[in-house]
Formats: sequence, C-alpha cells, structure tokens
Amino acid sequence: MEKIRIAIAGYGNLGRGVELAIRQNPDTELVAVLTRRDPESVKILTPGVPVYSIGDAKMIQDKADVLILCGGSATDLPQQTPQLAKMFNVIDSFDTHARIPEHFENVDRASRESGNLAFISLGWDPGLFSLNRLYAESILPQGKSYTFWGKGVSQGHSDAIRRIEGVKRGIQYTCPVEKALEEVRSGSQPELTTRQKHTRECFVVPHDGADISKIEQEIKGMKNYFDEYDTTVHFISEEEFEKDHTKMPHGGFVMRSGVTGENRETSQMIEYSIKLGSNPEFTASVLVCFARAIARMSSEGMTGCRTIFDIPPAYLSSLTGEELRAKML
Amino acid sequence: MEKIRIAIAGYGNLGRGVELAIRQNPDTELVAVLTRRDPESVKILTPGVPVYSIGDAKMIQDKADVLILCGGSATDLPQQTPQLAKMFNVIDSFDTHARIPEHFENVDRASRESGNLAFISLGWDPGLFSLNRLYAESILPQGKSYTFWGKGVSQGHSDAIRRIEGVKRGIQYTCPVEKALEEVRSGSQPELTTRQKHTRECFVVPHDGADISKIEQEIKGMKNYFDEYDTTVHFISEEEFEKDHTKMPHGGFVMRSGVTGENRETSQMIEYSIKLGSNPEFTASVLVCFARAIARMSSEGMTGCRTIFDIPPAYLSSLTGEELRAKML
Repeated sequence: MEKIRIAIAGYGNLGRGVELAIRQNPDTELVAVLTRRDPESVKILTPGVPVYSIGDAKMIQDKADVLILCGGSATDLPQQTPQLAKMFNVIDSFDTHARIPEHFENVDRASRESGNLAFISLGWDPGLFSLNRLYAESILPQGKSYTFWGKGVSQGHSDAIRRIEGVKRGIQYTCPVEKALEEVRSGSQPELTTRQKHTRECFVVPHDGADISKIEQEIKGMKNYFDEYDTTVHFISEEEFEKDHTKMPHGGFVMRSGVTGENRETSQMIEYSIKLGSNPEFTASVLVCFARAIARMSSEGMTGCRTIFDIPPAYLSSLTGEELRAKML
Repeated sequence: MEKIRIAIAGYGNLGRGVELAIRQNPDTELVAVLTRRDPESVKILTPGVPVYSIGDAKMIQDKADVLILCGGSATDLPQQTPQLAKMFNVIDSFDTHARIPEHFENVDRASRESGNLAFISLGWDPGLFSLNRLYAESILPQGKSYTFWGKGVSQGHSDAIRRIEGVKRGIQYTCPVEKALEEVRSGSQPELTTRQKHTRECFVVPHDGADISKIEQEIKGMKNYFDEYDTTVHFISEEEFEKDHTKMPHGGFVMRSGVTGENRETSQMIEYSIKLGSNPEFTASVLVCFARAIARMSSEGMTGCRTIFDIPPAYLSSLTGEELRAKML
C-alpha cells in the first residue's frame, strides 16, 4: 500500500500534534516540515525527515500528497493557504468564523487555477461541531441549537490577561454552566444569555509587588472579553501554575432540542460533546484523518476548495466501503 | 422552488412519522401512500393525497422523486427495497446489521439496472450512530468504542414477553448502566460485559389468575433475550400500562475513548447521544432529511446503492453551500 505523504507547514503545538497523529495512522507518513524559522533551529521528533524554510516549499512540491498548514488564523493562514494552494493540496484549520466566506473564495480561486484540492476550517469548531449542527438541524428542522465550549483554555482570553500590567503569567478557562446544560437537556428550549451559558475562570501569577486587586478589576471589566461574563480570578504561585496550568485541555457541547409529532408534542434531543486532554493534539488528529480524504478526492480529479460539509464520511476511513458496511454500519 | 415529491410505502408508526416529518420540511411534499392493506381502509392525515395498493406502485412511478419504505426489516424490506428500486429512488431503514452486506448487494444491483439511486439502513442505529462511530474512529484510531442503547423500548424483547402464557400486555425497556457510562467517560477504557452495560426492565399486565412468579421466571431465564442481563419485572394494572407505557421513547450513546500524544498519554473523548420522545418519529425525520440528498444526487446522475457513509453532509440541508459556510461552519 502506498502511504499518503504529508508535509507540515508550521511547527508549533499544532504542527507537532500533526507529526504525532501521523504516527497513529499507518497509512500516512511525514515527508517534510516547512518553517518560517531557521530550519537548522527546528528539531522535530521524526528521524530522517527534512526541515525546510517555507520559502523553499517548491522543493517538496512533488514529494507531498498534501500539505497541512499549522499557522494561526489571524495573520498566517489568510496569506499562506491561498499561496500554498498554488503548489499543493492543502488542509487548514482556519477558525475565524466571520471571515470563512472570504477565505473560502481566496483558497478556491487559487486551488482551481492550480488544479489542486483544498480543505479549510477543519478541526472541531469550525469542524466537527459545525458538522453536528448541520446534521442535527437538517434532521430536526423545528427546534433550537446550542453550542457550549469548555471546560478549556481560551488562547485569546489568556493573551488578554497577560497584557495587563503586573501579570507575570496568566491563563483563562471557559466553563459551560452546568445548570444551563441541564435546562437544554430538559427539552424546554430556554433562551440563554451570554452570562447564563458560560463562566470565565482565570489563574494569574502576579509580579512581585503588583496590585492584585487592580489586576482583578481590570480583568473583570475588560470589554468584549470578560465584562459580559461571571469571572473569577485566582492568584497563584508560579509553581502551582507550572504544575496545574500548562496543559491545553478543551471541549464542548453541541445540542439540538427539537420537536416532532402532529402537534409538535414530541421532544427529541441530540447531543454531541468532546472532552479533550489536548486541544492541539485533537485538532491535529482531525486534520490528519482528512488528509486521507483529500488524497482520495484529489486522485479522482477534484479541485477547488471544500469544507467538512462537502466530504463523504467514507473518505475519512482507511477501510473499504465493503468493510465499513460489514463492520461499522 | 420545486418541492421534493415523496411517496411512502407502508403506513404504520414509521410511515405515519414520515408523513409528519414531511410537514416540517417545507421543501418536501407527500404525493402518495402505498399499502398492502385495502387502500380504502387506510386513513391518512394529509388531505387530498391518494392511497394505493402497493401492487399498483407503477401508477405513481412518475409522480414521486423518492419512495420511502417503511416496512419491517425481518421480511418486508429484503423483498420490497430491491423490487421497488426497479421503479423508484428508494430509502429504507433496514436494521438487521448482520444482513446489511447482502441487502446492499441486492439493492445495488436492482437500482443500477434501473438507473435509480437507493439509500439503505438509514435511521439512528444503523444510521447516525454508525456515522459517529466512523468519524470518531477515523479521527482517534487508537482507542475503544462503545455503544449503549436506551433508555428505550425494544420491540423484539417486548414481543418475546407477550408470547409468554398469562401475559396480557407487556413492554421492555433497555437501560444503559449509569456506572458503566461514567467509567467510559473517565477515559479508563474498561472492558465491559453485556451485563455491565445494560439492564432490562419489563412491565407486564398479567391475565386474571395468571401465575406471576412463573411469568417472572420465564422472562428472566429466556435465552438470548434476558438470561445475560439483570432483568427486573414489574406487574402493573392495565390502566397504568395505558397511561405510562404506550409511548415509544428510545435513545443511546456512542462513545470513543482515544489517546494521542508522544506516549499515548493524552486522553481524548468523543460522545454522541440522543434522547428520543418517539423512536419512529425520529427515524422518520432522518429518512425525510435524506430524501433531500437522494433527490439531489439522483439529479446529478448517480445510480446504485449508498449508505450514510457515502453521502456528503451538505446534501442534507436546504441551505446552499454559501449559506452553510456563512451560517453553520
């Protein structure tokens, strides 16, 4: 069996996760890593796999069936994905929801012109959560959908905390409110405010002599980040931070509360949830599994941009259609 | 907009559910019902829609974009689906897992020869549960999968109870064991026996003068049905049965407990669950939503048999690709 040859662009937490996920999928192999840093300075885990400057991407154009982009959505991917789609089949995890249509257009144009295939916005939200919203809303057209996130680390909110004067280290967890989850599960289709759905929990290591009540006030009042939420701030030692707060757990819930029946009298509930020990490792596992699909669909001649909505589920599995029907249906 | 014209074959609980689901989907319409009973004797809910004998199916061949088969898997569907696939695009909910490959072959042959498209084994298990097994196992290749059913009515077990002498009415609920669910959620990947996963709860209305301890013994010892489970039997009055036990609730859980990371040290959990007020109404909602997909895929020229694994999710929605990306991704 020929393995699916994967290259990685960007070797941070996500890129390293992709490298690890490739090890768990025997029908895939890592062929190269591209980086914006000095390639000499990047030490990867897989022996014998070369690291190149991203500017030298052309060198591996014929060596990779797909390039998985592991940069950030704010500035990296809007540029990199369309650009690299001119040379490769590409997969990214672009997650700025509001800018997806624009990103789609740019990537679609580039990949059509080059005859490549591109999957954008893969991961869990956007990604698996979007997929579950689609299935559940299509099946139960009358009802209400809910998405809850957490408990998990929000990178954006953690960054915001760290910009406050006097903060040495900081991390923020988004937590779904258990009472709200239960209300949704009851089938009552509640209207929930932002405050009722999630709380925000912050752990801060202050600099020596910092005014911690001022830090707490600044966090809690921060517009768009914290002011609409019930926020708690814990001040802890650097040791405690190091011990308990350096992982990247996350998770969440997608729920559809629907009704069926002659007079809409029957309550029907669909709930999808994930609980992740590591957000980047899980997202990476999603990306690698879709590498299988892009290789197959590209070999069938498809080009242009696709999202998780367009990909037949069978393409994600290493099993044949016959095996899937016999074992998994 | 032209509506998707749906015909129903078989007007029991599922067929009636399909009729109700069509009302909830404004882009679909019911055009006819086929029955094995005397058509005159079948009163449906939708005014003006004709009921024909199933032997007269040919009469509506040009009037329906898809025929949804609502018969049973034991004897109806193995015959009906291949036969009616010669005339129509067909959708069924064939759920005898072990016989799916054979059923697939028969339906595939018939529908290819006639140039029609067929979707088999739709619903929730097989169906949505299968889909979730496929996504989760493809994303987390190293791990363990679990399926729990219930709390819900098992038709087969209820039938078995009703065959016992002295039983006037009877119903059986399959119940997942909460402790087992929690063990799986912990990430410990337990090995669970049949007995550890589910219990069986029976409600029986005995005939006057029946030997209830004999009934209880017979139920609990019944091979393949109850002997491997912890079973409780409640004897109740006919009034209580009528009040509390004439609905068809069901549900269940599909869970994937996986590991990622350099030394498989990271626990990752995916859980999908449904809680249904009415099993047939929910299954019917799934079937009608896939009618949208079969109409589209058929109009693109596809023929032959497909399962839920082969159908791109976007085809289930009435929204365009552009709308889906903007609103749901």
